[in-house]
Amino acid sequence: MLEDKNIPKTPIATLGEFALIETITKDFTIHDPSTHIGIGDDAAVIQHGDEETIVSTDLLIEGVHFDLSYMPLKHLGYKAVMVNLSDIYAMNGTATQITVSIAVSNRFPLEAIEELYAGIRLACNNYKVDLVGGDTTSSTKGLMLSVTAIGKAPKEEIALRSGAKEGNLVVVTGDLGGAYMGLQVLEREKAVFQVNPQSQPDLSEYSYCIERQLKPEARTDIKALLKELDVKPSAMIDVSDGLSSEIIHLSKASKVGCQIYEDKIPIDPEVGKTCEEFNINNTTAALNGGEDYELLFTIDQSDFEKVKGHPHLSIIGHMTDESSGYNMVTGLGQQIELTAQGWNGTQTEE
Amino acid sequence: MLEDKNIPKTPIATLGEFALIETITKDFTIHDPSTHIGIGDDAAVIQHGDEETIVSTDLLIEGVHFDLSYMPLKHLGYKAVMVNLSDIYAMNGTATQITVSIAVSNRFPLEAIEELYAGIRLACNNYKVDLVGGDTTSSTKGLMLSVTAIGKAPKEEIALRSGAKEGNLVVVTGDLGGAYMGLQVLEREKAVFQVNPQSQPDLSEYSYCIERQLKPEARTDIKALLKELDVKPSAMIDVSDGLSSEIIHLSKASKVGCQIYEDKIPIDPEVGKTCEEFNINNTTAALNGGEDYELLFTIDQSDFEKVKGHPHLSIIGHMTDESSGYNMVTGLGQQIELTAQGWNGTQTEE
Repeated sequence: MLEDKNIPKTPIATLGEFALIETITKDFTIHDPSTHIGIGDDAAVIQHGDEETIVSTDLLIEGVHFDLSYMPLKHLGYKAVMVNLSDIYAMNGTATQITVSIAVSNRFPLEAIEELYAGIRLACNNYKVDLVGGDTTSSTKGLMLSVTAIGKAPKEEIALRSGAKEGNLVVVTGDLGGAYMGLQVLEREKAVFQVNPQSQPDLSEYSYCIERQLKPEARTDIKALLKELDVKPSAMIDVSDGLSSEIIHLSKASKVGCQIYEDKIPIDPEVGKTCEEFNINNTTAALNGGEDYELLFTIDQSDFEKVKGHPHLSIIGHMTDESSGYNMVTGLGQQIELTAQGWNGTQTEE
Repeated sequence: MLEDKNIPKTPIATLGEFALIETITKDFTIHDPSTHIGIGDDAAVIQHGDEETIVSTDLLIEGVHFDLSYMPLKHLGYKAVMVNLSDIYAMNGTATQITVSIAVSNRFPLEAIEELYAGIRLACNNYKVDLVGGDTTSSTKGLMLSVTAIGKAPKEEIALRSGAKEGNLVVVTGDLGGAYMGLQVLEREKAVFQVNPQSQPDLSEYSYCIERQLKPEARTDIKALLKELDVKPSAMIDVSDGLSSEIIHLSKASKVGCQIYEDKIPIDPEVGKTCEEFNINNTTAALNGGEDYELLFTIDQSDFEKVKGHPHLSIIGHMTDESSGYNMVTGLGQQIELTAQGWNGTQTEE
C-alpha cells in the first residue's frame, strides 16, 4: 500500500551468500573508535577500555512483530535498530555497535533486502553506531530479523531497573500512545485497501501517530540531557510494551510500589484526537499500547526543580512502599490498580 | 525418531512470556567475573577491562539449518552455542557470554523449550560461558534460534583471517568430514523410518559421525594448546562450511594463495569407512562437508618442529603468492584448483 512496487527484482539466488553480504554491507561506514574489526572475520572486535560493555538483543518476526503490507522495508530496518538502541539507552549507556542477522524466504528479491539495509544504514548514521557483523540465511517462510546492540558506559553511570527507592519521582520522556494509535490507523487503511485497492487515503492528519509507529526514534538524547540537568536516574527502563507493564517491571525489580497520576501522563494532541475518533481511551493507549520507545526513570525528590516543566520530561508519579502495590489515580480521583496487561477498573476492589 | 515423545506437554500460552523466561533461565549460573548484570534488565552489562571485546552471531532456522526429526532439541541447543563459540575461538579469543533469542510456533510445548535450554545450559557449563540475555517470541512457523557470543582477548593475541603470509604453514585441528557423514547417516535413517516407523536401527558403528553432527564441540582447547607450544597463529578461521571454502576465505583475506595436500587432510577411520559405504569420496566430505567446527590456522615455518606430529594438529600445506591461486595436490600428484563450493577436477585445465 505504502510500498513502491516498481523497484527492480534481482533474485537473491543469483548472487550467493557472500556476494549478498558484500552488496548489503559495502555502504556502511565506521563511526566509533572502539570498532577495531567490523564485518568480514569470524567475529567483530571491539575495545571498550575501562568502561562497561552493554549488550541487548531482539528478534523480529514477520506476521508477529511487523506487517509488510504497511511497513516499508526501509522503515522496518530503521525500527529494528531503534528497538535495540532503546535498550542500551535504557541502561543510561551509549550505543556503539550493532549486529544484524536476517532470514529471508525467496519471495524477497535483492532490492528488497537492500531497502531493508538502507533503513539499517540510516539508523547507524543517525545514531553513530557501527554495523559490525551478522548472519544471512534463507527462511522457509517470511522475513526474520535479529538485532544485537552493544554499548558502553562508565560503571557509575549505568541505570538498572532495580535502583528505584521509595519516594523517588517517576519521570517519562516525550509522550505516549502515539505508536499504538498509528498502528490502529494503518490497520484500518489496510482493511480499506483490501476492499478497494484504488483508494488513495489522505493520512496527513495522522502523520505524527504513523511516524511514531513506522519510524520511531530511540532517546539517545536523554543521557546528555540528564547530565546537563545534573540529574542521575536511580532506575531506568524503556517503554517498549506500554507504560503499565514497564512501571511494574521497574517497581518489582526495585522492590517498591508505585503511584502514578492519569492526568500527568503525556499525550500528544494528535494522539488524543485520534483516540477520540477510534473511540479508544487515550490513557489505555498510553498504558497498554507500547512501541513508543520513550524512557521511564526514577529520580531523587531533591531533583524535582531541575526536571519540573522541562519540555521533554514529565513527572507522572512517585515510588511507594512495596506493600502498596502498583496504582494509578484517575482524572476523577479514583485509585485503580495497574496490571501488566494495563489497568483494569474492576480489579480495584480486590 | 531419536526423540523421546513421552514428555509432558504444557502449552506455552498458559505461562505468558515472563513466566516462560523465568522458567527457562532459572537454572543458569554465572561463571565469568566479567558478567556484572545478566538476564532481567534492558541489557546485559559486561566488563572486559583492557581486553578487546569479541562479538559473533548466528541465526538457525528449522527446515534450513536443522531437522527436528533427527535432531533432539537438547542437542540443537548445545550445537547452537557451539556454532557461535567456535567463531570466538577462531579469533584466538576466550568466550565469556552468550545471548539466545528464540521464536517458537505453538506446536512446541514448554517441555520442548526446556529441553532446548537444557542443551544451552550444558554448553554454558561445559564451556564456562554465561547466558546474559535474549528475546523470546512466537513464530508463525517453526523454530528459530539466534545466538550471539561475546568473548575477549588481549589485542596482541587476536588472530584475524587476514594475517597469513606467503610461506606460512597451514594447520587444521582434529579431523574433518565427520559431521557431514553423520548427516548422511541420519538422512538415510530418516528415510527408512518414514517407510517403517517400527525400525530400530543400530547406529553404533556410526557413533563418531553422528556425534560430530548432533553434538559438535568447539575447540576451546586450542588457544591454550598453542600457548603451551609457544606458537602464535598468524591467521585463523573456523571450519564451519568445509575446508575448501574456509581456506579460500582465509587466503583472500590475507591476499595470498594456498597449496594443500590431499593425503595430509585428517580423516577419522570411521569417517573413511562410512564414506566408502555411501560411495562418497572422503576428500570431498572434508572439503565441502562443513559443520566440523575445527580451527584452520597459519603459522610461521620456523614453528614447524613445535607442531609436527601433535595428535590434535595436522599440517596440511602452505601459503603461496597470491597469483598462484588456491590449489590442492591430490594423492596421485595432480594439482587441482579449489573452489568455494569445493574442488572440481574438470576446472583444472582452465
